[in-house]
Amino acid sequence: MAIVRVGFIELWVRDLEKSLEFYQGLLGFRLEHREEGAAYLRGYEELEWSLKLTQAPFPAVRALGFKVDEKGLEQGLAWARQEGVPYRLESDWGRPEILRLQDPFGYPLAFYFKAEKLPRVLQNYHEHRGPGILRIDHLNVFSPRVGEATRFYQEVFGFRLTEYTEDDQGRLWASWLHRKGNVHDIAFTNGEGPRLHHFAYWLPDPLAVLKAADILAGAMRTDQIERGPGRHGISNAMFLYLKDPDGHRIELYTSDYLTVDPDLPPVRWSLNDPRRQTLWGHRTPKSWFLEGSPLLDLEDRLVPTEAPALQGLPEHVT
Amino acid sequence: MAIVRVGFIELWVRDLEKSLEFYQGLLGFRLEHREEGAAYLRGYEELEWSLKLTQAPFPAVRALGFKVDEKGLEQGLAWARQEGVPYRLESDWGRPEILRLQDPFGYPLAFYFKAEKLPRVLQNYHEHRGPGILRIDHLNVFSPRVGEATRFYQEVFGFRLTEYTEDDQGRLWASWLHRKGNVHDIAFTNGEGPRLHHFAYWLPDPLAVLKAADILAGAMRTDQIERGPGRHGISNAMFLYLKDPDGHRIELYTSDYLTVDPDLPPVRWSLNDPRRQTLWGHRTPKSWFLEGSPLLDLEDRLVPTEAPALQGLPEHVT
Amino acid sequence: MAIVRVGFIELWVRDLEKSLEFYQGLLGFRLEHREEGAAYLRGYEELEWSLKLTQAPFPAVRALGFKVDEKGLEQGLAWARQEGVPYRLESDWGRPEILRLQDPFGYPLAFYFKAEKLPRVLQNYHEHRGPGILRIDHLNVFSPRVGEATRFYQEVFGFRLTEYTEDDQGRLWASWLHRKGNVHDIAFTNGEGPRLHHFAYWLPDPLAVLKAADILAGAMRTDQIERGPGRHGISNAMFLYLKDPDGHRIELYTSDYLTVDPDLPPVRWSLNDPRRQTLWGHRTPKSWFLEGSPLLDLEDRLVPTEAPALQGLPEHVT
Amino acid sequence: MAIVRVGFIELWVRDLEKSLEFYQGLLGFRLEHREEGAAYLRGYEELEWSLKLTQAPFPAVRALGFKVDEKGLEQGLAWARQEGVPYRLESDWGRPEILRLQDPFGYPLAFYFKAEKLPRVLQNYHEHRGPGILRIDHLNVFSPRVGEATRFYQEVFGFRLTEYTEDDQGRLWASWLHRKGNVHDIAFTNGEGPRLHHFAYWLPDPLAVLKAADILAGAMRTDQIERGPGRHGISNAMFLYLKDPDGHRIELYTSDYLTVDPDLPPVRWSLNDPRRQTLWGHRTPKSWFLEGSPLLDLEDRLVPTEAPALQGLPEHVT
Repeated sequence: MAIVRVGFIELWVRDLEKSLEFYQGLLGFRLEHREEGAAYLRGYEELEWSLKLTQAPFPAVRALGFKVDEKGLEQGLAWARQEGVPYRLESDWGRPEILRLQDPFGYPLAFYFKAEKLPRVLQNYHEHRGPGILRIDHLNVFSPRVGEATRFYQEVFGFRLTEYTEDDQGRLWASWLHRKGNVHDIAFTNGEGPRLHHFAYWLPDPLAVLKAADILAGAMRTDQIERGPGRHGISNAMFLYLKDPDGHRIELYTSDYLTVDPDLPPVRWSLNDPRRQTLWGHRTPKSWFLEGSPLLDLEDRLVPTEAPALQGLPEHVT
Repeated sequence: MAIVRVGFIELWVRDLEKSLEFYQGLLGFRLEHREEGAAYLRGYEELEWSLKLTQAPFPAVRALGFKVDEKGLEQGLAWARQEGVPYRLESDWGRPEILRLQDPFGYPLAFYFKAEKLPRVLQNYHEHRGPGILRIDHLNVFSPRVGEATRFYQEVFGFRLTEYTEDDQGRLWASWLHRKGNVHDIAFTNGEGPRLHHFAYWLPDPLAVLKAADILAGAMRTDQIERGPGRHGISNAMFLYLKDPDGHRIELYTSDYLTVDPDLPPVRWSLNDPRRQTLWGHRTPKSWFLEGSPLLDLEDRLVPTEAPALQGLPEHVT
Repeated sequence: MAIVRVGFIELWVRDLEKSLEFYQGLLGFRLEHREEGAAYLRGYEELEWSLKLTQAPFPAVRALGFKVDEKGLEQGLAWARQEGVPYRLESDWGRPEILRLQDPFGYPLAFYFKAEKLPRVLQNYHEHRGPGILRIDHLNVFSPRVGEATRFYQEVFGFRLTEYTEDDQGRLWASWLHRKGNVHDIAFTNGEGPRLHHFAYWLPDPLAVLKAADILAGAMRTDQIERGPGRHGISNAMFLYLKDPDGHRIELYTSDYLTVDPDLPPVRWSLNDPRRQTLWGHRTPKSWFLEGSPLLDLEDRLVPTEAPALQGLPEHVT
Repeated sequence: MAIVRVGFIELWVRDLEKSLEFYQGLLGFRLEHREEGAAYLRGYEELEWSLKLTQAPFPAVRALGFKVDEKGLEQGLAWARQEGVPYRLESDWGRPEILRLQDPFGYPLAFYFKAEKLPRVLQNYHEHRGPGILRIDHLNVFSPRVGEATRFYQEVFGFRLTEYTEDDQGRLWASWLHRKGNVHDIAFTNGEGPRLHHFAYWLPDPLAVLKAADILAGAMRTDQIERGPGRHGISNAMFLYLKDPDGHRIELYTSDYLTVDPDLPPVRWSLNDPRRQTLWGHRTPKSWFLEGSPLLDLEDRLVPTEAPALQGLPEHVT
């Protein structure tokens, strides 16, 4: 199943208007379509929608979407049947065929190839608002079994490892895996899971990351700025983590590096290296290590979670 | 008459809606007030309006405004009477006392101290639009007698010279004069005059200058981009020159330097130095040396112009 | 032959010291190795060298290097034998196996997989100099038969088309083709060829492009700034074109977009669209359409060139 | 005594080589002159040196320098005699006449007008290193009597208030005062004093602030990054606070606003407003409120300090 890249995320939100005020109003996402209880948004570089918000009784993540190549859907279907994992074919606005399945770790994946192309607006700079959200970049999920999930996503789904965090005993605490040629399409972080840690969008440049923080502050929403702006040690990217009105964590992210070489040596980080989380040595708030969004299974029930095998927090936490 | 800084400009425009679409819609100026046939705008840092657009039968400049200190108006009035130059006291929206006068070179100056302060919006980043226009920075006027005007503005109005352009024979082609502590509040450029060459607004950083060009291009208005983005040799500032719908030239400008030292040695530029106009050696379009906006006298009649004493164009022109 | 990305370029230069003063001294390339008459350089993100400068009697391009995957070299060798194109196996510093071949259009290609990895310096920010050269991004070559070359590179080498320029009669004037997931690894431009038009390096952000222009201007080398800084219509990237001391053209480039989707629709540009070359409508100097670097064949003899099938220049040229 | 602007600072450092490695090596200050046990540095925009480092047995601040106008020195001398404060005339490298005096609060001030002008290097971009230090911007001093010192510096030295922090009972905790036309030349902060809190240099743009943090991190000196990068609520400037090898605190600062209007209303901040210290709501490390550099009197003895009248720390401290 040739996965091309992360493609979209579908979030359950409690108040669609409040969520749109955040994503469209403050962050400048383009709202492309609205239906009863759902909204479809995209960044300025994207030709397909990448964020679906669905009005729901509680916050959750319904789907982690990946674009596959032309034969990917068929291969995914064959794999799901062979492995016996729950799966279902669906369609959605602009996406006629989506294969939803729950992987062995409980993550609700959605694979698709076909997508109705929206008009190109990358160079409609006079219409851009906010910090200039360009495209979905990656998903980061909590896992109680990071080592196992990392191997599985490499061997079964063909992801490639770019960076990882180990403790002194060689135990894997976090991994960054890609398909599209930058640092990651998905990352696994040690913690109670399966849950979503965050999803991330690419910004045009580091100044845009600062601008996003300014916009939140201007709107008197500093309580939604959880961490950053800063530069990651891991990935070398500039980042800002925000909490949306339902507590879903979104990262604004830019300026990592090219990873297409088949012989690229993964970068190892020591768990307690002060430059790992933020290159500048900043401490990370404890909430960042603990809070996440629950996942839904194919029947829209909450996926149960378990405690991580590796206990404790890294140093450099406030 | 202690002049504090350039304070505003009043432009005659033929189609107020089209002008607002440009200044407010594309460049993001804040519209603070509208009256029959007139609009008052400001940048995000300003507490007073700085741009007045007036619906009129033809494009022209009605006033070049300067903020003075508390005693400036009285001193200006005394000076105008003593010199016998035309003058008049007016009031406008938010400015109860304006002394308008026509200086000996024909420039329609307007001096004021009192101004109703508008609410501070500098940190309302969620409301900012466009490249982020901050404040009026300077005026640049064509003069057929640059040497004479430069001396007069230094001796009578207290401006201080920061940079100047000379030819090989030591003749002054252009001068930059300030009051507020950066490179200029007013500049004189050799050419048919008196006319306005351009007025300029300060942007937050060089990326904002690029963004302004992107916005014009996005809106399919590349024909209004006359020159730049680039970095000036003179002033060291990043710049972009645009033509508004009436042909008035506005410069977006940022990152010059501090000039408050009384013993600051003025910087001399040779007329044909390729780095003078644009530090990177770019040629300047001929229109930039020739086109300007006519001025109005105190009776709203066009001020007659005369040809410059110094003939010819610099090299490095396209 | 699975090509991963553009990997390096080898230039003949007449004065290695002067070239190093330019590439290392002004642009901040890292010099990693010197041998009798040759120097090996890289950008701060690269783990392999990407620029080889060789002292020679005249300026030329000896090799256009592409990284292939593990089996690529063997496949390339088989293909060269089957097609009967000239080829040779070589080794170089840090690259034990290089397959050099001359393709049917005359371009001297070099394929390699194995490379000795240099230490990671991406986050050694205290050692970075100049605008911050990160990695080689693409090659652009003149071709008298753009249509033919474009098809060949797609069908035989597996490149994918992202953007192209056509005239009103549907004739192809230029094409942009990628492997690594951004706008191009190679581009074909109509003109006397085969010759190199330019090679390009990625910078961290648009401000770095301005900084490169400032550095050249500071060093009194504005004559080596041929075009830009500006934003391309094509690719949406920020750019600056410089001429090195031998007249080789290097582009500094950043901020294009992700192109990994298999169903990405190529962007068509009309030859005389004023926003095509520079989004802001700037004219392009004639030299940019005419001047290029000659190529060497496998015996280090100049590759003969022919005139292009399509005659004339686009509009918007100075 | 017409003070023009803050002009220089003289620091005692324990290891001149280590200090130069920091200021010149990492931050890119230009070293202009060295004598036995002393070094004179400047930013790229300055025509006079602004930082003097003197080898000494312990870290301290020997002089807080202010540029005055032509008559300032004479007026200062008259004032010092009249008030009976300790004073002395000195000369230093490039500054033939310096009036040193200790003000009634114990701050060791130094006034000068004449200065040998160094060559202009602002546009020598090829020689710039580090984040691009441009010019000294301000001094910030701890005072146990902020209210009193603020009034004195306004009334006697002619500084003008731009921003201030009050608690709920209307007690002044901090004040920002300027002469040169931006937010401050000097600020008073409640705390054990008189001591230096920090001195600040202006950078070209917000990206340069990020670059400074990257450089420190690259050199494995994250322990010297005390606070930031961030945007202040107060002053609206982007900032980064570093500790030099002796614990002297330097701020890198850019993008505040113009304050020349005589009727500019000062901005009031509430002590516990989360956006006051960092607009984005970041907490401030406790060290930032407590640590400072001791001052020397005119005999090079430590100036004794006293505890502040206002006890406690603001909220939003880590």
